Amino acid sequence: MAEAIAPGRLAAFSDGVIAIAATLLILEVKAPSAGEEVWPALRHEWPALAVYAVSFLVIGIAWIHHHNMFHQVRRVDRGLLFLNLGMLATLSYLPLPTATLGNHLTGHDAAPAAVFYSASLTLAAAWFTLLWNHLCARPYLLHPAARELAHEARRRSLLGPVSYLLAALLAFVSPIGSLILNAAIILYFIVGRRSPAARVQ
Amino acid sequence: MAEAIAPGRLAAFSDGVIAIAATLLILEVKAPSAGEEVWPALRHEWPALAVYAVSFLVIGIAWIHHHNMFHQVRRVDRGLLFLNLGMLATLSYLPLPTATLGNHLTGHDAAPAAVFYSASLTLAAAWFTLLWNHLCARPYLLHPAARELAHEARRRSLLGPVSYLLAALLAFVSPIGSLILNAAIILYFIVGRRSPAARVQ
Amino acid sequence: MAEAIAPGRLAAFSDGVIAIAATLLILEVKAPSAGEEVWPALRHEWPALAVYAVSFLVIGIAWIHHHNMFHQVRRVDRGLLFLNLGMLATLSYLPLPTATLGNHLTGHDAAPAAVFYSASLTLAAAWFTLLWNHLCARPYLLHPAARELAHEARRRSLLGPVSYLLAALLAFVSPIGSLILNAAIILYFIVGRRSPAARVQ
Amino acid sequence: MAEAIAPGRLAAFSDGVIAIAATLLILEVKAPSAGEEVWPALRHEWPALAVYAVSFLVIGIAWIHHHNMFHQVRRVDRGLLFLNLGMLATLSYLPLPTATLGNHLTGHDAAPAAVFYSASLTLAAAWFTLLWNHLCARPYLLHPAARELAHEARRRSLLGPVSYLLAALLAFVSPIGSLILNAAIILYFIVGRRSPAARVQ
Repeated sequence: MAEAIAPGRLAAFSDGVIAIAATLLILEVKAPSAGEEVWPALRHEWPALAVYAVSFLVIGIAWIHHHNMFHQVRRVDRGLLFLNLGMLATLSYLPLPTATLGNHLTGHDAAPAAVFYSASLTLAAAWFTLLWNHLCARPYLLHPAARELAHEARRRSLLGPVSYLLAALLAFVSPIGSLILNAAIILYFIVGRRSPAARVQ
Repeated sequence: MAEAIAPGRLAAFSDGVIAIAATLLILEVKAPSAGEEVWPALRHEWPALAVYAVSFLVIGIAWIHHHNMFHQVRRVDRGLLFLNLGMLATLSYLPLPTATLGNHLTGHDAAPAAVFYSASLTLAAAWFTLLWNHLCARPYLLHPAARELAHEARRRSLLGPVSYLLAALLAFVSPIGSLILNAAIILYFIVGRRSPAARVQ
Repeated sequence: MAEAIAPGRLAAFSDGVIAIAATLLILEVKAPSAGEEVWPALRHEWPALAVYAVSFLVIGIAWIHHHNMFHQVRRVDRGLLFLNLGMLATLSYLPLPTATLGNHLTGHDAAPAAVFYSASLTLAAAWFTLLWNHLCARPYLLHPAARELAHEARRRSLLGPVSYLLAALLAFVSPIGSLILNAAIILYFIVGRRSPAARVQ
Repeated sequence: MAEAIAPGRLAAFSDGVIAIAATLLILEVKAPSAGEEVWPALRHEWPALAVYAVSFLVIGIAWIHHHNMFHQVRRVDRGLLFLNLGMLATLSYLPLPTATLGNHLTGHDAAPAAVFYSASLTLAAAWFTLLWNHLCARPYLLHPAARELAHEARRRSLLGPVSYLLAALLAFVSPIGSLILNAAIILYFIVGRRSPAARVQ
């Protein structure tokens, strides 16, 4: 059954959720309270700030990826609607693993926090592959010119979940190493020609 | 007295409130603090995460329902404006029952928390019936083609409050059972042909 | 110096801020924690919930008023831009007096909390009079058809700050009485023909 | 490689993030709790309220500046996209230095808090110079009529980071003096003809 939700409206609603999820992240970084010395307290927060930066960029890149995807969509069906809702629920929940890793990165229980964080990124990124997969199987949802490109986009979209999964595995041995790997993945997504967030052409 | 607020502007404002209400829900789930073990703390949060997922989907489905409704509206009167505001106030308040149930689902006072939660969902869903009722009584607010459909939509819109009310009653005997019933209702709303969120055709 | 910010863009940005301010209000109502009994804890929160409802409607009415105002505006100058920014800053700060009154309405220090609350509403409403005043003095900012109406709108816009100021004065003797007066003012704004939020015609 | 993200979509997403960042600021001001006297507690919060007002206006002015900039942009490339994302991440993080300064302005460790605050404003403002610089070096991203103006806009955009940097230096000797300097900078940005936020003509 075709839903008559216009792709533009769904994209605008998604933009709103994504913008809010990105902006709420900072609430998980604790400001030095009145009784604390400022510099030591901020130094103590560097892991939270580093994870904030990584998560903000992950969500920013997801926005770009989402925007590029919806640029190709001409019709929304119910499956797309609810896959998209699942993706939004997962992005909206990222403040939780972000705060978890920020609290534990330099502590004694850093490995499970880093595994949880990278596994959450894997999950968030996997929705994009599911979305592209749904579109590839239903080419009538895409603009005619986009039907060829969608298969390439689906292939590229695997790079996100696979890379974050590697970071999750690395986290078992080196939590900080896995955060650095996440940052490197993001850097590649920013500058790389074959990044999932780059428009397929 | 006719207000000159365009349906599109009211829908866009409502989209904003709904997107924010959905995204704020995660703030009620507590991240493991620096002194806690990560896995046990997260396991302890599973009720909060389960309730988060249900509430996020409830709000997402409300968005779809709202969108489908406003697709049929060609004029906004004052009654519609304030019924819509009441509906937004109720959706915006859902983080409170969500956090209440998340805190109590596995505790000794779970039944009242689950009653409060499902009663809140009932209230939120009932606004949609009130809105459709207002539209059915004032067909000049609707696009001509939608006037027939509105009665069917009003009838279907009862499914939400009635189902959530049953979940509220079930909550007196089984809090977890009522959360599972809520999840089943949502699943039906996602896949069911006669779901209130499905477009009437 | 004329700014080239289109009224539509300024209105959309303002809509965003207003929607967020309304939705954040619920974060100030504390959910019953795991160790508390649910019903007694919620009963204890009734003042916070009552103030939540009043504040949400105040902000909703401000949105309608703002929307009606910007419907008449065809050009934005720098004065309008910054008066609007001051108004947004005041609406965004309402979670603070809302939480203050919610915490104190039934306590021993209720009067100052209620004075603070109604004084904050007075301030928020006064910006609208300042905005209309700015527009009346610069009719070239308005659509030609709106120039007559603006004087009537300015006159009506006084009703908000004057009524909330009376509620602030009443708060010195009866905090709950002043909240009831605020609710009555809002009810009038919802149903009254000469409400500031009603479109002048 | 040219991204096909329309400037309007990027501006709308940025508007959302900026509106949320401004509105979240108030959450860092603590409402008097039930056990506290209201007036003394609010008096104790005046530094937080003063810093709230300054930060809200800083973000509001950034919005105006951003809006004026994107009014000149006709194409978005990947560099612009990620410079803009960096700028948004920095604006979104302002609740942290805002809360830090609010907590410490009248305490014994005010100087580092004020240095941190003004340094954060410097960083946020510097992104605008980077953005204008990117545009000046790639005039094909701008509307033809804007290519001359961009150099003037870049020059003016230096006023923000340079002024905030002076405030950061002043903060070492007078934390309150530096907050007053920040307020004066903002006042100039509001009324000054050559403010970075004023449209170049």
